[in-house]
This record gives sequence, structure tokens and C-alpha cells, in this order.
Amino acid sequence: MRLVVQKYGGSSVANPKRIMNVARRAVQAKRKGNQVIVVVSAMQGETDRLIHLAYQVNPDPSRREMDQMVSTGEQVSVALLAMAIHRLGEKAISMTGFQVGIVTDELHTQAKIVDVLHADRVKKCLREENIVIIAGFQGQTRNHAITTLGRGGSDLTAVAMAKVFGAKVCEIYTDVDGVYTADPRIVPNARKLKEISYETMLEMAALGSKVMHSRSVEVGKIYGVPILVRSSLNHNSGTLITEEKKSMEKEVVSGISLNTQEAKVTIFGVPDRPGVAAKIFKIIADHHINVDMIIQNKTNTKTTDISFTLMKSDLKRSLPVVEKSAEAVKAARVACDEDIAKVSIVGVGMRSHSGVASKMFSALAKERINIEMISTSEIRISCVIRGDEGKKAVRALHQTFRLAKK
Amino acid sequence: MRLVVQKYGGSSVANPKRIMNVARRAVQAKRKGNQVIVVVSAMQGETDRLIHLAYQVNPDPSRREMDQMVSTGEQVSVALLAMAIHRLGEKAISMTGFQVGIVTDELHTQAKIVDVLHADRVKKCLREENIVIIAGFQGQTRNHAITTLGRGGSDLTAVAMAKVFGAKVCEIYTDVDGVYTADPRIVPNARKLKEISYETMLEMAALGSKVMHSRSVEVGKIYGVPILVRSSLNHNSGTLITEEKKSMEKEVVSGISLNTQEAKVTIFGVPDRPGVAAKIFKIIADHHINVDMIIQNKTNTKTTDISFTLMKSDLKRSLPVVEKSAEAVKAARVACDEDIAKVSIVGVGMRSHSGVASKMFSALAKERINIEMISTSEIRISCVIRGDEGKKAVRALHQTFRLAKK
Repeated sequence: MRLVVQKYGGSSVANPKRIMNVARRAVQAKRKGNQVIVVVSAMQGETDRLIHLAYQVNPDPSRREMDQMVSTGEQVSVALLAMAIHRLGEKAISMTGFQVGIVTDELHTQAKIVDVLHADRVKKCLREENIVIIAGFQGQTRNHAITTLGRGGSDLTAVAMAKVFGAKVCEIYTDVDGVYTADPRIVPNARKLKEISYETMLEMAALGSKVMHSRSVEVGKIYGVPILVRSSLNHNSGTLITEEKKSMEKEVVSGISLNTQEAKVTIFGVPDRPGVAAKIFKIIADHHINVDMIIQNKTNTKTTDISFTLMKSDLKRSLPVVEKSAEAVKAARVACDEDIAKVSIVGVGMRSHSGVASKMFSALAKERINIEMISTSEIRISCVIRGDEGKKAVRALHQTFRLAKK
Repeated sequence: MRLVVQKYGGSSVANPKRIMNVARRAVQAKRKGNQVIVVVSAMQGETDRLIHLAYQVNPDPSRREMDQMVSTGEQVSVALLAMAIHRLGEKAISMTGFQVGIVTDELHTQAKIVDVLHADRVKKCLREENIVIIAGFQGQTRNHAITTLGRGGSDLTAVAMAKVFGAKVCEIYTDVDGVYTADPRIVPNARKLKEISYETMLEMAALGSKVMHSRSVEVGKIYGVPILVRSSLNHNSGTLITEEKKSMEKEVVSGISLNTQEAKVTIFGVPDRPGVAAKIFKIIADHHINVDMIIQNKTNTKTTDISFTLMKSDLKRSLPVVEKSAEAVKAARVACDEDIAKVSIVGVGMRSHSGVASKMFSALAKERINIEMISTSEIRISCVIRGDEGKKAVRALHQTFRLAKK
């Protein structure tokens, strides 16, 4: 019998009405003759409510206790979904990470799944005609502490369950129809991709496309589990994230992405000596600040300027750290700029095509858009530009690379 | 090292401020050189919030899933309390019923504790200087489903933990100072009892004294665990619920209780044949309606009237059932009366003293209070009277039996 793994995020189970909607979809899959595993997140807002409670009690809460608490969000939603499915006349049983025996490492709040102890329990429930509903985002250490998997954690659970129980595909239900060549709100004739490679999707996710978190795509890639991204609000076909295929290479560029969530920080007058950059970014990393693009420009013989981007939401807590690191290396001063946008083109076809970068830069130049920073990977080119020119840039690139619906 | 078990109810952990208060008490006990286990309930209102969610999804929710969901309430409060204790500089670790391995029977929503599998884990945490915070009200079946223990369940957990880990006494913190000879709001000079026997407390609890649920007192009695009832809001000494002692017998009556939560239902013209009462109360029991006092009065040769009391909150759903049972035995009609009060005197001394009942009836007669129903046990006499005469009756009896502060 075919096994289907479906995953629904927090907005899909945000209230009783939406939970009934998810129940109907799961029941539908069951009544088509499949065995069904459903992985769900906490109801939208619940995790934040709990975290807020914790900070009222302790400004620096223990990560173990945070996980113990936050994991209840999914425990509530799996039980509610089981009740909803019962109401539709099908058998269903909910299971926590503990009950499935999802063992992780000890890294609370961002643990990694390392084993699944009680697959037999899940299999037994499936054989007994149950839809098995598994709490996403959570596991336990070998020491019986509850852990959570961090951002995108429920997707990770779903991909792992698809692997462990041998599903052909892991269906991720979200509030978008799939992966588009660009954000349809910016480019109305953006085209939905039928398929996309893990690698391209990873770059898209890293660039801020909110369809899926990169960790889950990575795990899908490692385990060889194809991931079908679909909307929980309609029955459209979605986008399949899978292994790179010949057909994909025909497309030089698969998509254009825009990220306006980053800010640029510049450290001016950094002494130009070996080890200085290392010292700066060690201090920043020690404070768990994630830095994205890093550019160094040598401006005179003795000093250099270093710019990098980070999440705007991290800026407030990061600036004092950056100031500290600048002092540590005797740099001149620190400045920051929140009014930037990062526009990127992504596609596995770039590997075998030359001239893609110059085509991108020309397209931006034609629109009189100034490029402030450039960063590239094998299958991606990103440019930082002024914040208010982001949408114009996306539209120009979408047209230049002929990504529109035919 | 001495082990202290403390239990705090939902109102004691209702918000971050109160959680800090509980944390301070636990830390205080620890710093006196004790090992400390704290059992907590869900934050006030949380369980109801969850139950309400469930009923929105399914009007007849599965009990297994209900337990899976509702048990999260305690999981949140134990984690928050651990964080609060950390803030005060002591080590603490929270544990769910699952983590302690509190095994129960399979009776979801009102399970009984049958075993504790992982006492070693708790002992290890205690040895490592942790205050161990255990989720009340919950356990697991041998089949790995989460169960809850029903009303008063957190007290049960606390008493069981006191037994398993060998605490000399189980401290139950609540919003009252202890057990009084009568409700101090009715009798201003009511006296707090230093000690009370399990039996007397059981009768008091059954009579509606909200200090403790009878199940926990019963378990304390069976396990021989003395229970100290204290306020979480002050440092007064509380009341110790313990084995009956010689000294207690000196007090003929330990307390007067008043219950205005019950209503009287009368079935008139019930055919006077063997098996009729059985038939009526079987139908009522099948609908899970709890009946308290039952009185039968034969009024003529062929028929009889049967009266009983039940919770007012159950009245609405019960009346159709009672009507049905009356029809089933061809009784004449059903009437109900919500305007009643039940006043009771309780005390182990009654066993060895005669004339207590007549003294009670005389006291009521002197106040011109009419008695409508009487029910007695070995250590209790209850009278149903008019609702508006309840307080007057309590005051009269309190004086008659000389219970006031000396």
C-alpha cells in the first residue's frame, strides 16, 4: 500500500475551521487507498505566546526548559487534528516526538534528528487503519529530555518520516501554490515551476524565499526524498523539489528572488593585516549572529573597508557586538544601512552557461540601478542595490531571462 | 537528607508573578538543606481553554486525544517554574509524567496511578542538587498513551511522589490557610484545625469543602502519607491531614460544612415494588450523573416518593434523564428545588459519643430551621434545609459544638 506523508504548517492549523480543512485533506488521501502520516506544526501564534511567557519568568531561559515548554504547541495541534479526523469518520491517532521515539542530538532549540526508535509503533497504527498524526518540530535526547529542531523543524520531521517509512514523496502544504520564477505579487506573470532541483531550491530558500527552510531541503537531498510543495487552500499541483534532471539545465535561470530583510553593516578603516577579518567575524559568530554576504574593499595602502549583510531583525543586538569587534582590531568606525535590497538570480543552468552575470548587470544598468555589492555561487548571482529599487530590478530580470508564462 | 514534596495548584501558578512566588518557596525549602520535589498544575484557565478548543473541533472528542492535549497545560507550567527557579540561582529540572514514567491504568481522563518506572531518574536529578519539578495530573499507559488523573489529579501526583520518594509529609499549597471548623467567611471566629484525620477530611471534602479533593486524601490514607495543607500566599502553619489520633477523639465535632451547590430532585408517585429504585438510579448512573443524598418516603400503600440531591451544575442535563427514568417506572411526576442548603457536622469523635444527632437537630430547631432531609455516616450528619437558612445554621451549630477560637 502506498504511504503518503503530508505536512501542514502553523497557519494551516491556526483555528478549528482550518484544522477541519486539514482533516478533510488527510481523510481524502486515506480514502484513495493510501496509508497516511500527517506531520503538523503548532497553531499559528502559539509558539510565540509560549516564548513570551518564558521571557516574563526569566530573561535568559534554559534551552532545555524552553524546549520542554514550546513542544507542547505541536502536542496540542496533533491531538486536535486527530479529533477532527474522528469527526469525519476515520481512525486517527496522534503521537508526540517522544511517542515516536524521534531521537535527536543534545542541541536544544536546534537539535538534529539522529534516530527513530519506535517506528514499529507507527507502523502498527498504520496497519490498524489509523491516520497517524505526528508532532513536528520535536524530538528527545537519549537522556529523555524533549528537544526542538529549530526553524523549519516540522518540515524536517516530515522529510525524516517520509524517509523512515518509505514514502515516495513528502508533501509539504503551505499557503503558497509552489515555487514561482519570482514573487507573483511583484511579477504578475511569474510562472510556477513544476520541478526544481534541491540545489536551486536551497539557494532560493537561503535568499529569503519563504516557501521552505533550507535545512529541510538539505535533508530531503541527503535522504533522496522528493518534496512536493503545495497549497493547503486549493488543489493545484504544486512544485516538486527533486534531483537535478537534464531538462532542468535548459533553463539558465529558474527564478529571481528579492530579499529586503537584510541590512548592510560597514566597518571602515580596518588595518590591512592577515587575521584581522578572522578576528572580527569570530567575535560576531561567538554571539550567534548570522552574517550573509561579506565584501572587502581595499581603499588605501594601510586600511580596508569590510561590509557585510545580516538580518535587519538582528541589527539592534548586533551593532554593539560589531562595534566591539571593530575596537578589537582598531578599526576607524562602523556604519549601517537598512535601506538595501538583495536581488538574486538562481538556476542550475548557470553552471554550463557563460555570460549570465554580465547579462544580469546590463539589465540592471539599463534600469539605471546601481549595484553596491555582488556575491556569487556556482548557481546564483546576488546584487545588493538601493531598497526602493528592488521590485523594479526583479521585474527587469524576470523579463531579461524570459521567465514569464508562455 | 530530608525530602520535601510541595504541590501548587493552578491559581498559584496563574501568571509569571505567582510562578516567581512559588519558585521562591521552593528555593527556600532547598536552602534549608532539603531535597525538594515540586508538583504543579496547569496555569489557571489553561485546561479550560484547551477543552474549549477541543469541543470546537469535535463535540465528542476522543478521551485519549483529550489527555494528549490537556496534559500540555502542566508541561508548560513545570518548564516555567524551572526557569523561574534558575533565575533565583538554584538548579532545577522539569519532568513530565512520561519522563518520570508515571504509569496509570487505561482509563483516560480519570486514570489511576499504578506504577512509577523511572524513580531513578528523579533520584539522580535530586542527587545532582536539582529541585525536581514534576507535572501533576498526568501519566502514561503501558501502551505509551498519555493519561490524565481527573479532578484533584495534581494532588494525587504529589501524594504518590511523597510515597515513592519517601517524604515524611506531602505539602499541598492552596489559596486557603488550612482546614477550618467552618468557613471563616460565615463564622468569623472559626478555628483552624492543626490536625485532622483522613476520615474526617474525606467527609469534609465530600461535603464540598474545596480544600482538597477526596481522591487525594484517600490515596494519602492508603499510602500513609500525611498531607499538610497550607496557603501559598503566607507562611501560616496549615492543617495536617494524618492518621486518627487519641487526641482527635476528644473533639466530638471537628467541623461544620455548608454546601449550597446542590439541588433536590423528587420523583413523586413511584410504584412501591422491589427493583424500582434500582431501575431509576441505573438510568441516572448510565448518564454519569453523580447523586449525593437519597431519601425514600413511603406516602401511601401503593406508591412512594424518592428524593435525591445532585450538583446544581448537573441539573439541566439531568432533568430529562430523571424524567425518562420516572417514565420507565411509571412514576407520577418529577419536581426539582434549587433553593436548598446542606449543612453537615463531621468528626471522628462522633463514633464514641451518643446524642450528637439530637444535639444538632435541637440546635436547628431552636433557630426555627426546618429539616427536609437527613443523611448520616459513622462520622457525619447532614441535613438539607432551605437555602437561605444555611449560614444561620452553620453559625448556630458552630456555637452549639463549641468550635470557636478559645
